[in-house]
Amino acid sequence: MILVQDQLKDQSEVRIDIEDRGYQFGDGVYEVVRIYNGQYFGMDEHLERLERSAKEIHMTLPYPIELLKTRLEKLAEANDINDGHVYLQITRGVAERTHQFPAEPTPFLVAYARKSPRPENKMREGITAITTEDIRWLRCDIKSLNLLGNVLGKQKAMDAKCDESIFIRSNDIVTEGSSTNVYILKDGEIFTHPANNFILNGITRRVVLELAEEAGITVHEKTFNKQELMDADEVIISSTTMEVTPVISIDGKQVGTGVPGKVARTLQEKFNERIDKLQSVKN
Amino acid sequence: MILVQDQLKDQSEVRIDIEDRGYQFGDGVYEVVRIYNGQYFGMDEHLERLERSAKEIHMTLPYPIELLKTRLEKLAEANDINDGHVYLQITRGVAERTHQFPAEPTPFLVAYARKSPRPENKMREGITAITTEDIRWLRCDIKSLNLLGNVLGKQKAMDAKCDESIFIRSNDIVTEGSSTNVYILKDGEIFTHPANNFILNGITRRVVLELAEEAGITVHEKTFNKQELMDADEVIISSTTMEVTPVISIDGKQVGTGVPGKVARTLQEKFNERIDKLQSVKN
Repeated sequence: MILVQDQLKDQSEVRIDIEDRGYQFGDGVYEVVRIYNGQYFGMDEHLERLERSAKEIHMTLPYPIELLKTRLEKLAEANDINDGHVYLQITRGVAERTHQFPAEPTPFLVAYARKSPRPENKMREGITAITTEDIRWLRCDIKSLNLLGNVLGKQKAMDAKCDESIFIRSNDIVTEGSSTNVYILKDGEIFTHPANNFILNGITRRVVLELAEEAGITVHEKTFNKQELMDADEVIISSTTMEVTPVISIDGKQVGTGVPGKVARTLQEKFNERIDKLQSVKN
Repeated sequence: MILVQDQLKDQSEVRIDIEDRGYQFGDGVYEVVRIYNGQYFGMDEHLERLERSAKEIHMTLPYPIELLKTRLEKLAEANDINDGHVYLQITRGVAERTHQFPAEPTPFLVAYARKSPRPENKMREGITAITTEDIRWLRCDIKSLNLLGNVLGKQKAMDAKCDESIFIRSNDIVTEGSSTNVYILKDGEIFTHPANNFILNGITRRVVLELAEEAGITVHEKTFNKQELMDADEVIISSTTMEVTPVISIDGKQVGTGVPGKVARTLQEKFNERIDKLQSVKN
């Protein structure tokens, strides 16, 4: 069962129009929300960001966020998801193709829920990364369907037999990963790109900053360059899907001692506590 | 009737999958080809560019260009298009959502042909424009489905009751319009942004450069800045849909004498001759 507008339907009933603006322009926004033990993680924050993304591209949501929240609960239940995620996107709807917005747009929402395991191995062993030029547009803060820059970045990592591309703007500033936020640890302090138009302000990023504070680790939301990335004591990435994962090598060079670092482990433990807390709220 | 892969089908039979990568990532490329008097204009050049765009995003076409050409001929015939256009897009197909390419992608092609009139009034009277920051990615040479920057630019022009947004990069360089190429005339010579990664190398742009040469007008494929745009004797835009159209005001300030200029008229006449020649080839 998938969610189409505000109705649960069988996937076979759903037909996306060739003139859906999502299909022709990538004119829409999306979210991916994690489900742990049958409970959504950070749902309010995801829906708030969805609303913001839509507002930034001057798109209205098809119906209120509160109703969407109840529909997404039903979607997870109907698909019997214990551990998994929901993918949700809203486009500006179907209209005859012109670049400008339709006179009376009908935003179109689809969402589906899937079972998916946590990336246990990657989190334990760490991942490998390459650096790549950040060629994306200047509104990376909007979680839009224009993801070709991210797609090409991720594929470049795969072609190099690595897990992630870390993007570097032409001014030598490290922004984020192709589908993750990036942190470095130097002399016991964390640095990560400020949440401006050059990165997506990840929901997991916000959690990581809270967890670091809880652990008494100073965090600087401050840009750093490629050399500082390569010289870091630890490098960590985060996302809804990848949670908190250490990076053990970049461009074939080992990060720190080449094994997951202490701060990564601390943040992972604290992240697990958050998930456990969610579970105890449920019970 | 629309073209789906290599088959003509009734539009009602066509169902785009919610996991088509075109819908979730804008992971695809497209072309719009004009039909005059039942004949495609510049079809070979459009198909060659389509092939190039696909190659740049490491995507293969579902079948050979030569076969596509015959299918597009049938599409125009089946829809009895005398004056109109065909819209054609190819995505990386349906796959479970991950940023990296699917292991075995099945590219998916749809195309439709529509009747559409030439923009006679705009071409005669000229259009109005605003300038806007170019926030798009750094591969504007790829005619991809990631068009949100173009969409927002065009809408900004509409909101200002103008026809087009002319993009200016943060380094003060005029790149192109939200859906057009841009030319300025200064002291009898034409300047237009070189065909590199910052603009789409329009098929009509190539024709305009040929026509200018035929008319003995010197063309410089050389960047110019906003002040040079505002001080130009004439400003002209071109695209498959807008053909060759003069710009008579920018940001509320008149261009030259505020009426379509001589060079715009010369290029329009020569463009019409090309269309007439196409017709005589048919007869």
